[in-house]
Amino acid sequence: MGKLITLLSDFGDRDGFVGIMKGVIMSINADAHIINLAHGIPAGDIAAAAFVLERSHSYFPNDTIHVVVVDPGVGSTRRSLILKTEEYYFVGPDNGVFNRIPAIQNCVHITNMDFCLPISNTFHGRDVFAPVAAHISKGVPLDEFGPPVSDFYRQRPAAPEKGMAGIRGEIIYIDRFGNLVSNISESCLRDRTIKDSIIKGYSVSGLCHAYAERKKGEFLNIIGSHGNLEVACNQGSAAADMEVTVGESIYIRFE
Amino acid sequence: MGKLITLLSDFGDRDGFVGIMKGVIMSINADAHIINLAHGIPAGDIAAAAFVLERSHSYFPNDTIHVVVVDPGVGSTRRSLILKTEEYYFVGPDNGVFNRIPAIQNCVHITNMDFCLPISNTFHGRDVFAPVAAHISKGVPLDEFGPPVSDFYRQRPAAPEKGMAGIRGEIIYIDRFGNLVSNISESCLRDRTIKDSIIKGYSVSGLCHAYAERKKGEFLNIIGSHGNLEVACNQGSAAADMEVTVGESIYIRFE
Amino acid sequence: MGKLITLLSDFGDRDGFVGIMKGVIMSINADAHIINLAHGIPAGDIAAAAFVLERSHSYFPNDTIHVVVVDPGVGSTRRSLILKTEEYYFVGPDNGVFNRIPAIQNCVHITNMDFCLPISNTFHGRDVFAPVAAHISKGVPLDEFGPPVSDFYRQRPAAPEKGMAGIRGEIIYIDRFGNLVSNISESCLRDRTIKDSIIKGYSVSGLCHAYAERKKGEFLNIIGSHGNLEVACNQGSAAADMEVTVGESIYIRFE
Repeated sequence: MGKLITLLSDFGDRDGFVGIMKGVIMSINADAHIINLAHGIPAGDIAAAAFVLERSHSYFPNDTIHVVVVDPGVGSTRRSLILKTEEYYFVGPDNGVFNRIPAIQNCVHITNMDFCLPISNTFHGRDVFAPVAAHISKGVPLDEFGPPVSDFYRQRPAAPEKGMAGIRGEIIYIDRFGNLVSNISESCLRDRTIKDSIIKGYSVSGLCHAYAERKKGEFLNIIGSHGNLEVACNQGSAAADMEVTVGESIYIRFE
Repeated sequence: MGKLITLLSDFGDRDGFVGIMKGVIMSINADAHIINLAHGIPAGDIAAAAFVLERSHSYFPNDTIHVVVVDPGVGSTRRSLILKTEEYYFVGPDNGVFNRIPAIQNCVHITNMDFCLPISNTFHGRDVFAPVAAHISKGVPLDEFGPPVSDFYRQRPAAPEKGMAGIRGEIIYIDRFGNLVSNISESCLRDRTIKDSIIKGYSVSGLCHAYAERKKGEFLNIIGSHGNLEVACNQGSAAADMEVTVGESIYIRFE
Repeated sequence: MGKLITLLSDFGDRDGFVGIMKGVIMSINADAHIINLAHGIPAGDIAAAAFVLERSHSYFPNDTIHVVVVDPGVGSTRRSLILKTEEYYFVGPDNGVFNRIPAIQNCVHITNMDFCLPISNTFHGRDVFAPVAAHISKGVPLDEFGPPVSDFYRQRPAAPEKGMAGIRGEIIYIDRFGNLVSNISESCLRDRTIKDSIIKGYSVSGLCHAYAERKKGEFLNIIGSHGNLEVACNQGSAAADMEVTVGESIYIRFE
């Protein structure tokens, strides 16, 4: 069994883009084991890809190779990268999709075309990232793909502002169910009791431990599976009901 | 090759939930073979999950482990279960998703946290169901996961009412193509000839053996792949054209 | 490791149709390796399936078996086929989905029901195509499935009209991003410089090598990953902005 390779993209399931990448990988390493992380990232939404990658990658065995193709700058001068942490490899564009991966030990700029297919203007997932991942899974050392770089894209995500009376944060992700994920982690809240969250004029009281603690259609605060405070709606969509989008402010008031 | 594990959920393909479950499984049993049953079940639609599971599970080899995560009550007091029939294992919440599985021989309430990840409020697919399925696939006996229970959720689906002149049933599922699947099985119809079906003011005549027996855009009755009578529209959507939703009444008149 | 089997359909991810096909295949050949090509083909859109198959199939290793189930004529007299090229096998309905596959060496009409499940009216993906593909992957010779046929569906796709001043073509596919793929290949353009493309009253100037060569929201011409001229919108959808659908005319003017 070869190493695991995961794929994360905004390709959807209509056009064969994901299938093509798998064909390219299997043609290079027939023992590769390929797993979809997600392919319904909104088109070109780098921040969403970075969030999903952050919260997903560490559930995989060591040495898994995570390939990310959310790449609106494909064909421009943006670089193609391999990143390495102690546990994982990451392959994708230098545009921020790896912004939330901690403890990067090594980064290589992919310049050796011997490991790539002929390079098109618009599909480096097929031409660069898939074949490079396949070659990594076969044991090619990283320095054969190109020179090391240290100035890869890095931007510190906005941190919540903690005060005595509360915490001001923002919504950083909205999932399929319309749950509003904030940048306020459980550790920010430790030792304090939540009176309510204020978001877009709504006041949502208390902190629940299950959606079902509120009636159907009611809003609630809960620590989500990512460890961050979420505003949700039991059996409904908080995003739709509140008309909230990513970037919206949220304020937590303590008791 | 380890045992097959299938996954059925309402997670969609945006947020990485399915990918995370696969990572958890692969981290426990690298020989597991994971197959998606479907992940586009409408959010929280337990009845749809139960229907898809009923009609899908028996096409898999014996000893396949079917994991279902349509779980609006996650984090509440609803139990986590393992069910066993002669041929298959089922893992998921005790909320009705297994309601249509016949001949359950054994049921275990998952209480042994040694086989689980730390348990969040909102994602037991990751924390409970995926790791438990992986451990089952490695051969852990069911009684190690918790005590047997016999009072798991069970509700008899509504049966059609058969009369001399016809059958009164209801629409229990609508598929991607807008086909209206009724609870009237082919065996209910045996020996009788269908004059028409009456649904939401429409009369649809006869019984076809192919969509193409009607003109494009025309309604028809057909025995679907599930063995039940469906109302369909050739190259169109009966659900959209008739504005029918699940639960709608249908009446079959015999010749 | 058995042969690779790919699946391409309009089944989406709601109803378990794809999962069922995989269960059928795994029940016949537990060593099969199944890969999704795409399942979000618009319902019944044979031309889209033919395009995706053309542009995807050749990235897979030799002897891969490509199964296509976009099949609005299921249950009618349309035949079920196996096609063979030098490198690949294809299994699916005789309705045009294989129209763009070049160099077919051999074609068999599937008539031997020993290799099929009991055949329903509406789901030959499950009853015919999946089990036949599984048996091919186990090495059953093609002539055991049925008699050879030579009159399978074949229609020459419309070619662009080349003139001295320009090329008249049409939009043959629109992808998830709203990129408008024309039937004008890069080789049609050789030695000439594009002044602009005229489509639905819009004039789009020049030829770009990256979406990012235009400002956000601006239209551009680019050679897409398929090798054909596309009209795109940087970080937007040309299809939505121009309200273009498949079949629209496009005219390229040379300098």
